[in-house]
Amino acid sequence: MSIATKDIIIEKVKNSKIDQVDFDNLAFGSVFTDHMLVCTYKNGAWETPTITPYQPITLDPSAKIFHYGQSIFEGMKAYKDKNNDVFLFRPLDNHKRLNISAARMCIPQIPEDYFMEGLTTLLNLDKDFIPTKDGGSLYIRPFMFASGNGFHASPANEYKFIIACAPSGAYFSGKVKVLIEEKYSRSANGGVGYAKAGGNYAGQFYPTQLAIEKGYNQVIWTDDTSHEYIEEAGAMNIFIRINDTLLTGPTSDRILDGITRKSILEIAKDQGIKTEVRKITVKEVVAAAKDGSLKEMFGAGTAAVISPIAGFGYRDTDYDLPELENSFGERLKKIITDIQYNKSEDKFGWRYQVKS
Amino acid sequence: MSIATKDIIIEKVKNSKIDQVDFDNLAFGSVFTDHMLVCTYKNGAWETPTITPYQPITLDPSAKIFHYGQSIFEGMKAYKDKNNDVFLFRPLDNHKRLNISAARMCIPQIPEDYFMEGLTTLLNLDKDFIPTKDGGSLYIRPFMFASGNGFHASPANEYKFIIACAPSGAYFSGKVKVLIEEKYSRSANGGVGYAKAGGNYAGQFYPTQLAIEKGYNQVIWTDDTSHEYIEEAGAMNIFIRINDTLLTGPTSDRILDGITRKSILEIAKDQGIKTEVRKITVKEVVAAAKDGSLKEMFGAGTAAVISPIAGFGYRDTDYDLPELENSFGERLKKIITDIQYNKSEDKFGWRYQVKS
Repeated sequence: MSIATKDIIIEKVKNSKIDQVDFDNLAFGSVFTDHMLVCTYKNGAWETPTITPYQPITLDPSAKIFHYGQSIFEGMKAYKDKNNDVFLFRPLDNHKRLNISAARMCIPQIPEDYFMEGLTTLLNLDKDFIPTKDGGSLYIRPFMFASGNGFHASPANEYKFIIACAPSGAYFSGKVKVLIEEKYSRSANGGVGYAKAGGNYAGQFYPTQLAIEKGYNQVIWTDDTSHEYIEEAGAMNIFIRINDTLLTGPTSDRILDGITRKSILEIAKDQGIKTEVRKITVKEVVAAAKDGSLKEMFGAGTAAVISPIAGFGYRDTDYDLPELENSFGERLKKIITDIQYNKSEDKFGWRYQVKS
Repeated sequence: MSIATKDIIIEKVKNSKIDQVDFDNLAFGSVFTDHMLVCTYKNGAWETPTITPYQPITLDPSAKIFHYGQSIFEGMKAYKDKNNDVFLFRPLDNHKRLNISAARMCIPQIPEDYFMEGLTTLLNLDKDFIPTKDGGSLYIRPFMFASGNGFHASPANEYKFIIACAPSGAYFSGKVKVLIEEKYSRSANGGVGYAKAGGNYAGQFYPTQLAIEKGYNQVIWTDDTSHEYIEEAGAMNIFIRINDTLLTGPTSDRILDGITRKSILEIAKDQGIKTEVRKITVKEVVAAAKDGSLKEMFGAGTAAVISPIAGFGYRDTDYDLPELENSFGERLKKIITDIQYNKSEDKFGWRYQVKS
């Protein structure tokens, strides 16, 4: 089964809505481009992908997405350089991870060429929506869900693979305050925490809302068994700098294998920054905050890129992080975004030009 | 905020599809009645419920249900007695649990009168769809999901509460074989396992499929920390009879507080059956299977009622359960279904007649 750009059925919009987009005041993921890619899985096979005007989806009330949370997604971005050339960042890794999530959630695998041809064809149609303002990008949301019908709690027989795009500004503005969580948990051993499955996100909303009410922006999850180990922040992986060593937890069946995370690790090594991928205890982070060896913390993810953390709360005490002159986070963010926006050489081979 | 039946906006079907239903060969939850109840939460309030012909739902591709699994549901049944009177079983408990699930998933609370008036009005319209054949019932699916838009991973600002109904036969036919699972898990400590949240179900599909490939029907989940304790079967709570004592695990933040489960416990006590609600180890169940003190196991849930278990697999060994003359499961099933179908006195006050 193979698909080429010429095979994709394209129905273009009659009138673009690009004039309605306020590119100077973009929120995150709330206005959308003219088109979307839709591919249906039916009778055991993916049908020919179609690109249609961005439009509502119509489903039976018994469609399993409404009942059993059988859904996964990816987050990607498209960037424009000063010549208006369009770039993606490690897109094949998103495709691979989508299929890893799909396997865990009993959703059929999407072939690489359906994903890549669909995505690049869509981007070529909607590339005028890619922001050129500093820090702006086109957020890309590939997602798959159970569109087949029936109340029986079992995998659906039909699925949709859709790509929708939203010109977007920053996910967080400014530094974030995080709360180390000890009561609620994000994922179970042997569960679905490593998958970008819908339910992993809804489960975080309530504890995150409680944290927001206390003045924090995000929760840092700990393991559900002992709450002794730092896991991830739900929308981001977490990096912690103690003295001059940059730490992050290992991925596991509970933790998402973040593409920004692994890129940061490679860049840091290349920069001569000492990195350690190992289990990090809450205890050592609190001790480091107390003795001054905790220099910085930041989140890493596609949406937030690198999100500096101003401080953390733990057991009713707030710990502030110092203002640094030589921040690893800032340095690494500049290097990764320079690669993404084609402002620097890409020695890692991560940049992917979308050919028009 | 209060709603009376007369306030519900009703749009009846022009032509009923009841003639297309094969009441002699009903599967579970795959054909639907003429109407559905839909209520929208918007601008911080529930709008007036509407009953419309059963019809597709239309949503923006960025609706949060597609991305973040923010969805919950309930399972209920309506029964007809020989006079064609219509009954529900402990419906207020379903309403309460729906709101417990809603709180955990950051979904707004649905008022009791919206739920009960909506449900009974719908049932009165569609009561001809309630099967009268032995073991048949109208399966009722109240569900709520995030219909608000946007790719930001945060709670939606709009929701739908919908009730759809499906005339249904048995969920399982015959006895089931279960596999005690030690690698995969259903829920985390501090997670959402006690909520009827969509994502809890999709996460079970893959391990359940692996079990089905090995010849089992369902997985019995163990705790994700040690895998030493029996939890639930995903679509059912689990009861285990050792000698003449009926055991079931305690509910927790990982285990659903099943309405059939708690009814069974009350009926068993009333019947003079010794019950114990306590943590059950896999080890003791295997030991009891080996020494012959394990008499029976069954699942309990709305869809499956009481589902007898023929045997279980554990670490590549199968353990068969004996055929009993005096089965607790059969006895309890007859008592609970006689109450549900108005064939016996209801000393517990669980039956709820739907007044026409």
